[in-house]
Amino acid sequence: MGALPTLAVVGATGAVGTVMCELLSSRKNMWGEIRLVASKRSAGRTLVVRGDEVVVQELAADVFDGVDVAMFDVPDEVSAEWAPIAVSRGAIAVDNSGAFRMDPDVPLVVPEINPEQSRNRPKGIIANANCTTLTMIVALAPLHREYGLKELVLASYQAVSGAGKDGVDTLLDQLERVSGDRSLGSRSGNVRQAVGDDLGPFPAPLALNVVPWAGSLRDGGWSSEELKMRNESRKILGLPDLKVSATCVRVPVVTGHSVAVHAVFGVEVDAEGAREVLRHAPGVILVDDPAAGEFPMPIDAVGTDPAWVGRIRRSIDDPRALDLFVTGDNLRKGAALNTAQIAELLSKELQAS
Amino acid sequence: MGALPTLAVVGATGAVGTVMCELLSSRKNMWGEIRLVASKRSAGRTLVVRGDEVVVQELAADVFDGVDVAMFDVPDEVSAEWAPIAVSRGAIAVDNSGAFRMDPDVPLVVPEINPEQSRNRPKGIIANANCTTLTMIVALAPLHREYGLKELVLASYQAVSGAGKDGVDTLLDQLERVSGDRSLGSRSGNVRQAVGDDLGPFPAPLALNVVPWAGSLRDGGWSSEELKMRNESRKILGLPDLKVSATCVRVPVVTGHSVAVHAVFGVEVDAEGAREVLRHAPGVILVDDPAAGEFPMPIDAVGTDPAWVGRIRRSIDDPRALDLFVTGDNLRKGAALNTAQIAELLSKELQAS
Repeated sequence: MGALPTLAVVGATGAVGTVMCELLSSRKNMWGEIRLVASKRSAGRTLVVRGDEVVVQELAADVFDGVDVAMFDVPDEVSAEWAPIAVSRGAIAVDNSGAFRMDPDVPLVVPEINPEQSRNRPKGIIANANCTTLTMIVALAPLHREYGLKELVLASYQAVSGAGKDGVDTLLDQLERVSGDRSLGSRSGNVRQAVGDDLGPFPAPLALNVVPWAGSLRDGGWSSEELKMRNESRKILGLPDLKVSATCVRVPVVTGHSVAVHAVFGVEVDAEGAREVLRHAPGVILVDDPAAGEFPMPIDAVGTDPAWVGRIRRSIDDPRALDLFVTGDNLRKGAALNTAQIAELLSKELQAS
Repeated sequence: MGALPTLAVVGATGAVGTVMCELLSSRKNMWGEIRLVASKRSAGRTLVVRGDEVVVQELAADVFDGVDVAMFDVPDEVSAEWAPIAVSRGAIAVDNSGAFRMDPDVPLVVPEINPEQSRNRPKGIIANANCTTLTMIVALAPLHREYGLKELVLASYQAVSGAGKDGVDTLLDQLERVSGDRSLGSRSGNVRQAVGDDLGPFPAPLALNVVPWAGSLRDGGWSSEELKMRNESRKILGLPDLKVSATCVRVPVVTGHSVAVHAVFGVEVDAEGAREVLRHAPGVILVDDPAAGEFPMPIDAVGTDPAWVGRIRRSIDDPRALDLFVTGDNLRKGAALNTAQIAELLSKELQAS
């Protein structure tokens, strides 16, 4: 067994990077040196990882020299440019952006579902799925293995931290501005007026509102986020013909994406059988006792690792369909945790080689 | 033409009753005397209707003497007892509770869809549908007429005012309690701790959360609210075999229910054709230009009459399916407005007879 591999975390100062530093601190015997990397603006700051103060380095080609695994949590265009540079310097890149996810030469890995694909990486890059797909897919994969998934109809309830720290600050600022005025939300436009023009990264106020839009406009009126849920679910599950319709909606929640799922299978299903499957599924916690007030919710799932699954019902009018509700921490399993898990597959592979 | 009929508003002091008094004030030449009625607790209060101060009377059999139309917005058990009493005193009852909606001898009327059914009322009672169904059904009926509806998969984003004034106060109190503490929503349980034990009419905190539960537990893990969406949609549209799966979720919005709709039809559809249908549909406003930030949202729809419809897309994997998003004011079209519209059908019938 070799020495512990060297890890670089690119985008260490962002919302996901911050969670990543926490996660790395609680996971031992995986990494030797850990380098933190960020844009020029954040370089020079000091972060604590594994109890040590680490100075953040500026993103440059030579920061990857001697690095075995480089995690990227940066915008698509930054990943597109820099992940190949990291690879050229000898690192394996694990990328959390959308830049490489649908590239046929880049595996899209969820360790509970398709860990074996992490070894097939012709470009030296492994992609991490988008946060909304990741928060639900860990619960859907075992149901697919049991019943054979044919179709998904999805409606999301996405937290503002999916849009980064700016998203969180925007919601919390807006809530302070509307708090105390008990007339708000009861007349058209009065929340808009109270919130003012600063919408942060969102197209409309989030306080006291839901916004049926996330991402950018694509053909047919679909949002990029909705297409990601379709295309990435298909790729992760290895189901190129899976029928998927998603509606992505932003809600005034800090962290914790939820998805209402209608899943149609190839055979008849039953709710108790589905519960039994999910009780034993890795990365899943079953919370399904409505009479006791137990169902998946962001305020409980935030800060935890698993996908919280509940509200499991067999559709009344279709014995092959299940309706359920899934909530997960979009910064953990939806981003940092899954990236860390992929990187750990690589650490073990490198240590064993 | 006879004199203007006499109207009684039972439950005048509640969240819906308050909106009803506003609506009645803006609609002329419909009613002669308007009597306001409420429980003993609220009797004696003075409300303003049509510019006049009216003293609220206590609910009793003789308040219905001389009344032509009695609107009820009270709990199910109060309607079940008192609507028949109003009928026995000569009134036609228009009931917004769940007590009579699925009674085969009680029509469930949405004036834009099935106004003719208001004349077929063997028990003297006409029911108003539940608020979540009403906010979307006005948009779905014209699409059904065009394409022939076969199946609905629904996920709701329901405002707290659907649970009455107590629901609104609960959310606003909770938001004041969490406002200013910028760490909340980022750790499991910290919102629960800040909110405390007073959850009002909800099973969990609504601030910085979404709660996948509304109503009471029914067979198979369904909530009563989810079954209402199925059963009432079928009855209003006259489609006893319509396949419906709904997941009902409460969100931290004051007023304005939204529904993400996946609608499967009998023939191929196209998004522009659907938009054209909805542009001309009564009671509907089309807001469907995502590039310009135009989609249906509670903060815009609140206080307005129509169903706001947008995000219209043809499903990528099913040419017979449309995905769309609908928002409506749950206190207006979802409750008071539809009740007032039914009562006005009766007023015209009575004036013409």
